[in-house]
Amino acid sequence: MIDATLAPDIGDIRQAAQRLDGVARLTPLLEAPQINEIAGRRVLVKAECLQRTGSFKFRGAWSRLSLLTEDELKRGAVAFSSGNHAQAVAHSAQLRGTPAVIIMPKDAPSAKIEATRGYRAEVILYDRDTESREEIGATLSEQRGLILVRPYDDRYVISGQGTIGLEVAHQARALNVDQADFIVCCSGGGLSSGVALAVEADAPGLRVRPAEPENFDDFGRSLIAGERVVNERMSGSIQDAILTPSPGDLTFPIGQRLFGPGFAVTDEEVLSAMALAWRWLRIVVEPGGAAALAAALFRKDTIDGDAVIVTASGGNVDRTIFERALTKLED
Amino acid sequence: MIDATLAPDIGDIRQAAQRLDGVARLTPLLEAPQINEIAGRRVLVKAECLQRTGSFKFRGAWSRLSLLTEDELKRGAVAFSSGNHAQAVAHSAQLRGTPAVIIMPKDAPSAKIEATRGYRAEVILYDRDTESREEIGATLSEQRGLILVRPYDDRYVISGQGTIGLEVAHQARALNVDQADFIVCCSGGGLSSGVALAVEADAPGLRVRPAEPENFDDFGRSLIAGERVVNERMSGSIQDAILTPSPGDLTFPIGQRLFGPGFAVTDEEVLSAMALAWRWLRIVVEPGGAAALAAALFRKDTIDGDAVIVTASGGNVDRTIFERALTKLED
Repeated sequence: MIDATLAPDIGDIRQAAQRLDGVARLTPLLEAPQINEIAGRRVLVKAECLQRTGSFKFRGAWSRLSLLTEDELKRGAVAFSSGNHAQAVAHSAQLRGTPAVIIMPKDAPSAKIEATRGYRAEVILYDRDTESREEIGATLSEQRGLILVRPYDDRYVISGQGTIGLEVAHQARALNVDQADFIVCCSGGGLSSGVALAVEADAPGLRVRPAEPENFDDFGRSLIAGERVVNERMSGSIQDAILTPSPGDLTFPIGQRLFGPGFAVTDEEVLSAMALAWRWLRIVVEPGGAAALAAALFRKDTIDGDAVIVTASGGNVDRTIFERALTKLED
Repeated sequence: MIDATLAPDIGDIRQAAQRLDGVARLTPLLEAPQINEIAGRRVLVKAECLQRTGSFKFRGAWSRLSLLTEDELKRGAVAFSSGNHAQAVAHSAQLRGTPAVIIMPKDAPSAKIEATRGYRAEVILYDRDTESREEIGATLSEQRGLILVRPYDDRYVISGQGTIGLEVAHQARALNVDQADFIVCCSGGGLSSGVALAVEADAPGLRVRPAEPENFDDFGRSLIAGERVVNERMSGSIQDAILTPSPGDLTFPIGQRLFGPGFAVTDEEVLSAMALAWRWLRIVVEPGGAAALAAALFRKDTIDGDAVIVTASGGNVDRTIFERALTKLED
């Protein structure tokens, strides 16, 4: 019997890597001299926007859904998400042949809502400011017997995201980088805590630092406070993918033990990072997925060393936002 | 003593792969269910826009420049190119510590001219309609003793591009595809002929078919005519990367022996393909680099089988053209 509420360890991540083998994509670790020049050091970019469903979330969703029993598969899965976890759970459920119900905020990018429906999931929309997605999810889970796939406070979801750390440990070494800050786009902390556990084991010279939107940097502020603090608002940034009220139950203790100081980046900085990634890395990054790159580019005085590693964690973005990013380029 | 005017064989390609190992990037073979649905079959996309300098051309340039002697390195390299070969030769020369002179058409995308200068090359601009880049290149080569790196009629350049075929043979098999048309963006035929030689050896169930711009489909028409024909014009398509007057001396015989029928795609189709690649593959593809994907999407009745493979061969595109592509999306 598995227990998703337990804290994950490196063994869980290695097992997740086995379940993901041949299903998730081994994404490249990219580098461009023009980006390096702006950042003042080498910047290695883990392009998880190239992952199935367009974000790292596929790893966690598949990690969890690949463990469903025959009986659970008959009932189906439920998830709440602003979009990337939604698509990941929907597509993983589709591949597993089980139904999925996804609870999404009304103001989620339409591209994400549309894509989630495209994976054949039933989508339920809620109001981010007045309703609790956790409550809606718990109720549905109870009423219909659906398996709730939490976006970060789940041992197997964190383990799936952590497989990125295993890959980067190997890929960075091949590029002669073994001492560096590893800036990770951070919301509830599933990705960053999983990656931190992985690199602690396989690349101890790398140190995870969370990147969050300005005014929504609950994880960074919680690290300073020594206890979990809550964001005042839950909307008002284009970095929709990484807006959560506070660090998770499972993820915060890992962050306290392993993370370096966090970064808070503005929407304008993130748009510039998206434009530079478009031009010099030829990848499509969404606002929340560009927070780490923005930190590497625009907080360079608070980073040490010859190299930095960042996640480009997702690429599901509406056209209008992307066009706004492109206007940041000089020509 | 090497002779770049000889026809390459599979042995040359395997040797090029060794020289490229650890220098060029192993680019992913991507797939998205939404693209598959539009195309009516699986579409595997070799994302060479993620290659160093943003196109497959880095492979050929490095393949050639890695063979320069000490004496040749002191003199330097010269190349003529609309932009991707330019950047590839410039950056390869920079990495080898040798000077580069690049002859570019005046109407090349400004992003490409700027990027070439960024790799520290000396750029000379010429008029595509009234001047011959081959003559300018030959003269410079003679006057300054520079080594001319031809964009496709060079045994070692073709061999470098062919390494894509070796990689795809392996990657496609891992995705359970071993019988398919392999549509390759085609200009002088360096990429397509190199890939054809590679898959002939390592994945004989794959058949290369060239994709070219409408009205500039000299290779496809030459295959039908049984002899090399010349395009009437040399400008007038946004697919700038793949406008050449006629098939190459070395590449045409390989094409005659190994290629299936070609495709000619319109600029509008290519813009739609770029938009779909942006949305569902999260990669940035330039017009000439999207010709093969456009063929897979919009010429599906002339393709057989459950799967097709395409190159996304470059991603160096001006912002205004890219914004035009995005308007092809419905929202």
